[in-house]
Amino acid sequence: MRVGASVVVLLAVCSAAPQSNSAAPALIPWPAKLTLEPGELPINPDFSVRAARFNDARLEAAIRRFANRLTLSTGIPLVTPQGGGLGLVIECSGPGPEIPQLGEDESYRLDVAPSGAKLTAATVTGVLRGLETLRQLATQDARGYYFPAIHIEDRPRFAWRGLMLDVSRHWMPLEVVLRNLDAMEAVKLNVLHWHLSDDQGFRIECKRYPKLHELGSDGHYYSQDEVRQVVGYAAQRGIRVVPELDMPGHTTAWFAGYSEFASAPGPYAIEREWGIFKPTMDPSREATYRFIEGLIGDLSALFPDHFFHIGGDEVDPEQWNKSAAVQAFAKKHGLATPVAIQAYFNRRLQGILKARGKTLMGWDEVLSPELSHDAIIQSWRGQSALAEAARKGYRSVLSFGYYLNHLQPAGLHYANDPLNGDAAALDAAQAALILGGEACMWSEYVTEETVDSVIWPRAAVVAERLWSPGETRDSDSMYGRMEAVSRVLEYTGLTHRWAPERQLDRLANGGDAEPLRVLARVLEAQGHDPRAAARHYTSLVPLNRLVDAASAESELIRALEKSAQRAARGSKPDMELLRRNFALWESNQKALDSLIAANPALREIGPVADAVARAGTLGLEAMDYLEAGRPASGDWIAKKKSELDRCAEPRAEVVIAAARPVRLLLDAIELRAQGANRPAARENAGRAN
Amino acid sequence: MRVGASVVVLLAVCSAAPQSNSAAPALIPWPAKLTLEPGELPINPDFSVRAARFNDARLEAAIRRFANRLTLSTGIPLVTPQGGGLGLVIECSGPGPEIPQLGEDESYRLDVAPSGAKLTAATVTGVLRGLETLRQLATQDARGYYFPAIHIEDRPRFAWRGLMLDVSRHWMPLEVVLRNLDAMEAVKLNVLHWHLSDDQGFRIECKRYPKLHELGSDGHYYSQDEVRQVVGYAAQRGIRVVPELDMPGHTTAWFAGYSEFASAPGPYAIEREWGIFKPTMDPSREATYRFIEGLIGDLSALFPDHFFHIGGDEVDPEQWNKSAAVQAFAKKHGLATPVAIQAYFNRRLQGILKARGKTLMGWDEVLSPELSHDAIIQSWRGQSALAEAARKGYRSVLSFGYYLNHLQPAGLHYANDPLNGDAAALDAAQAALILGGEACMWSEYVTEETVDSVIWPRAAVVAERLWSPGETRDSDSMYGRMEAVSRVLEYTGLTHRWAPERQLDRLANGGDAEPLRVLARVLEAQGHDPRAAARHYTSLVPLNRLVDAASAESELIRALEKSAQRAARGSKPDMELLRRNFALWESNQKALDSLIAANPALREIGPVADAVARAGTLGLEAMDYLEAGRPASGDWIAKKKSELDRCAEPRAEVVIAAARPVRLLLDAIELRAQGANRPAARENAGRAN
Repeated sequence: MRVGASVVVLLAVCSAAPQSNSAAPALIPWPAKLTLEPGELPINPDFSVRAARFNDARLEAAIRRFANRLTLSTGIPLVTPQGGGLGLVIECSGPGPEIPQLGEDESYRLDVAPSGAKLTAATVTGVLRGLETLRQLATQDARGYYFPAIHIEDRPRFAWRGLMLDVSRHWMPLEVVLRNLDAMEAVKLNVLHWHLSDDQGFRIECKRYPKLHELGSDGHYYSQDEVRQVVGYAAQRGIRVVPELDMPGHTTAWFAGYSEFASAPGPYAIEREWGIFKPTMDPSREATYRFIEGLIGDLSALFPDHFFHIGGDEVDPEQWNKSAAVQAFAKKHGLATPVAIQAYFNRRLQGILKARGKTLMGWDEVLSPELSHDAIIQSWRGQSALAEAARKGYRSVLSFGYYLNHLQPAGLHYANDPLNGDAAALDAAQAALILGGEACMWSEYVTEETVDSVIWPRAAVVAERLWSPGETRDSDSMYGRMEAVSRVLEYTGLTHRWAPERQLDRLANGGDAEPLRVLARVLEAQGHDPRAAARHYTSLVPLNRLVDAASAESELIRALEKSAQRAARGSKPDMELLRRNFALWESNQKALDSLIAANPALREIGPVADAVARAGTLGLEAMDYLEAGRPASGDWIAKKKSELDRCAEPRAEVVIAAARPVRLLLDAIELRAQGANRPAARENAGRAN
Repeated sequence: MRVGASVVVLLAVCSAAPQSNSAAPALIPWPAKLTLEPGELPINPDFSVRAARFNDARLEAAIRRFANRLTLSTGIPLVTPQGGGLGLVIECSGPGPEIPQLGEDESYRLDVAPSGAKLTAATVTGVLRGLETLRQLATQDARGYYFPAIHIEDRPRFAWRGLMLDVSRHWMPLEVVLRNLDAMEAVKLNVLHWHLSDDQGFRIECKRYPKLHELGSDGHYYSQDEVRQVVGYAAQRGIRVVPELDMPGHTTAWFAGYSEFASAPGPYAIEREWGIFKPTMDPSREATYRFIEGLIGDLSALFPDHFFHIGGDEVDPEQWNKSAAVQAFAKKHGLATPVAIQAYFNRRLQGILKARGKTLMGWDEVLSPELSHDAIIQSWRGQSALAEAARKGYRSVLSFGYYLNHLQPAGLHYANDPLNGDAAALDAAQAALILGGEACMWSEYVTEETVDSVIWPRAAVVAERLWSPGETRDSDSMYGRMEAVSRVLEYTGLTHRWAPERQLDRLANGGDAEPLRVLARVLEAQGHDPRAAARHYTSLVPLNRLVDAASAESELIRALEKSAQRAARGSKPDMELLRRNFALWESNQKALDSLIAANPALREIGPVADAVARAGTLGLEAMDYLEAGRPASGDWIAKKKSELDRCAEPRAEVVIAAARPVRLLLDAIELRAQGANRPAARENAGRAN
């Protein structure tokens, strides 16, 4: 009995803080409580799904979605969701809020036994969360697919688990938003924060002030019908949609149509550069507030959510400082600084929003004593800002440490807890004001083609940080599950794994892209800051180069780093694997050289190919020492490490991740050499001979 | 000047019958007339597209689609289609028919010069065709993307260029249909023949007889709104939609809801098996014709096309033969045979359709003397059937030789011309009755996940056969362009290259899928007949195995076959390439063995892996002989060829395509050995030493 025999081991790993273990189910986010039990429930074409108690259209649609995804991810045709065989019974107590609400009950309980599965939840949203858990449990063995017998009790740790999507800097068509909502549902994210306007584009149809989208978007905006579609699609999936119209800065695109509301005379044109810009709304004119009132009147009804994000970040005071009207106004109202002017502006916005039944949300900068206490602060500054907001009685959401466009390792986001740092010192009532967090996808360096690959799979890790118990922290376990879930996520319609392959095909320009794939697999793209420093980027610079096809974090290199550690401890299969890879990097250079010769557009890849090939050579040399078992001289080690340092320098905006496993090997050789100089080690070496 | 220097060479290859040459643009279908000229038109973010004369909503949408695809396929952001720089001027004379019509003017003329491009067409449909040609011309060099200067005059050879999609045997959701319409537009196919009903499913909402879709589809059907969406989407792309409701056989799914119209008593259930089944409509009852009248009344208005396909194929006469009522009816009407009964039935249908302004279309079997001459015959039997229909004065469409589900090489479809064989002997007036052809995608062995990979890229080759001049026949040129276009086609939303990768990931079951990729790349899936013979398939058998991820025709093997021919003539780089591949096949077996050990669901792959590894070994042995330059003994050759024969035997429903380049090497060695026995060859060998 395969399952019976292994169940004790499995039980041991399935605590609330899973250890790295391939037998643990690849769930993300990890449930609050999970117990594996003996046995399994097979997935056959007649697998049934039945809502035994409450049912409604949203639940029915969720069942169909579950069945479709299960079919896609296993290949097993399900006759209908209501097949006649063993299956799932859903016991839902009621609909819950008609549209998703902050703090609604998302808890569920899932019991899988060989005789059938039962999913219990108070609300339809709870059922959605449980269905995704069940789908992720689908497992394959010799006899086919099955769900392991299991008991799960689950609920989110934080109520606000968001993804912020910037659709202004690079336009993201409707289908990008929809497929990301599907993926968000799959990892239990529940807020789409839709950054709809910025200097580079005003992306939503405004019927009252049509020049906003007509002149501010290059024709790339969502119609109001499309916005309704997105909001409805999200609601079906238990996801709130919080719109952001960033004010009073970041508004250049607005002024392309309505320069009269800027603090300096126009004309203005859509911004093509990246950065912080001077155009700022004129806070001194009543007309500005009437304009905002009209705008929010036109748009707020599209968004049923209680919260409306007004941005408020990065206001350059220059236009205010230079405007006689603004200065006179400031003096009259006793607004001594630009910060005070912005606080005044925010207060006015808060009033406008309140009249529409909306609560203001803004970035760190909106926090000022005058702001009424229902406002929510979103922090890009960090846990100390969260703590400060909480001590002042404001609710807050963390985005510091969750900026996906910085292309940091998933482990870094995973370790970044809203209740870390200063926030750890808050009392319970204050800590309760920290609602959760949001992964941020700023779009300077992504297009509709590459955006999925930057968001996923790392957003899933943020989702786990925000849903799972705080003690769920094992990074190895997280990585293993993240990689497995990443593959399944493509069945939600995401293109995060495929788009880079297409990009490499395009780079190969009709040639064989395989050498480029070999190369790209051991590289990592640089994130926002180094890219901004590397060259003059604008919204018109094509993002179709090697760096745009490289991932944030190399799966292969992570595996080879593990291998290097095991190889250093003498593992033969790992030595073989490393040798194979190093040799491939070396030999790949020749193929790349001919590709580059045939297509000079690839010129910048040359030095990257050289560095990777050199890392391969250094790796092979290190393997020679390691396998021979003799200590290396200090000179040799120093020389090779310095050569590796040169290889490891980023070039063409990519990180030569290939250097990392080689460095681990050199470190191991160094450690051994140091050991060889200690008497005990010499003795051991003597005994070994 | 790169372009100036190479233009003479380019001109030479760009006749109406392109030769294989990497410098020729990768256009599919190849235009009727094409001349490359010196110079190029760069593609920059401010590339403009302007309709200078006639414009309408369909043309505007086409321009947006063109700009979006150009951005996706090059990575270059276009500010708006109406950018301010050099670009394209469209001179369209008028809208053409409001909805696409058989025989409408699809011609266009395209002139690209360094100063700008001009597209001239009489109709919007002509513009659509020209825009796709222009997009395919986008080329990359060291300075970026550009359109080569060119003069093209183009028009289709045949007016009917279709893709038949069976959505009954396996359900194909709306998005499958939509993305295939996009791909059809890209290769100038202009008819979607939508096979909406069969024994296994009635896939369209019928408001008058709701049990048709409610009980006949497992819940998998298109709502009438979705049908309207498809028809509108197709019309935007210049594609007609011809619905097929297959009668009087192939109707089991209908009888699940309405058994009273069958020729034998019910009850009936949706068929899960594949094949030809007995349930057949009762032609003896007036109620049957009233039912059909009501059905066509309900559905025909959804389809603006003049043609309505009634199927009519593969009628099993058993129910008719055994029914006293049918036999009495036949006797009364002098219908001596089942064929005569069906002819009567078809005549009645023709009347019902005519009353709705529709013209009947059917498969070969509907052809009978009683059928009025406006009917169109679709032939699965071949060119002799086409010729027969034409001689009798009927119009016809060829599908024989275009069955994509048989997984035959693209070259075979390419060589299959509607005017081949008996049809070549027709006079001009008769030949004019042959309207074109349709690629057929029967869906017994595909799902929504795999269907794109079976249709594409081979459907593009059928598209070329039907659009391009008859003398465009060079198979090497076709293959080169097909492979290039295949990559670009993914930018229309198709998943034909990516879906197999996901399937291999799923097979790897969390392990590294790379060894499976190496294997799958040198295999080919078996087509309909061998699969049907291999095991008992039904609609409930998962299609998630290696065979379902293998392609119809291996790109890699085709390349290696070319290499083997060059290696036999002494090409060192080809020898190296072959050795590398053979060695990889050999060494891959070990990795596959561990995958299989970890996942017994992969058991059937074992013998496949063995065969490929063995082919690798034989290839290496052959390379040894070839490189050594010494003749092999007859015994050795015979032994190796017989070993290779054993390797080459299909197993697990896949063809071991890997054997083919090895066979070419063995053939070359054999030829050389025979030459070595001739005195002249010995002399040569002597001189070489």
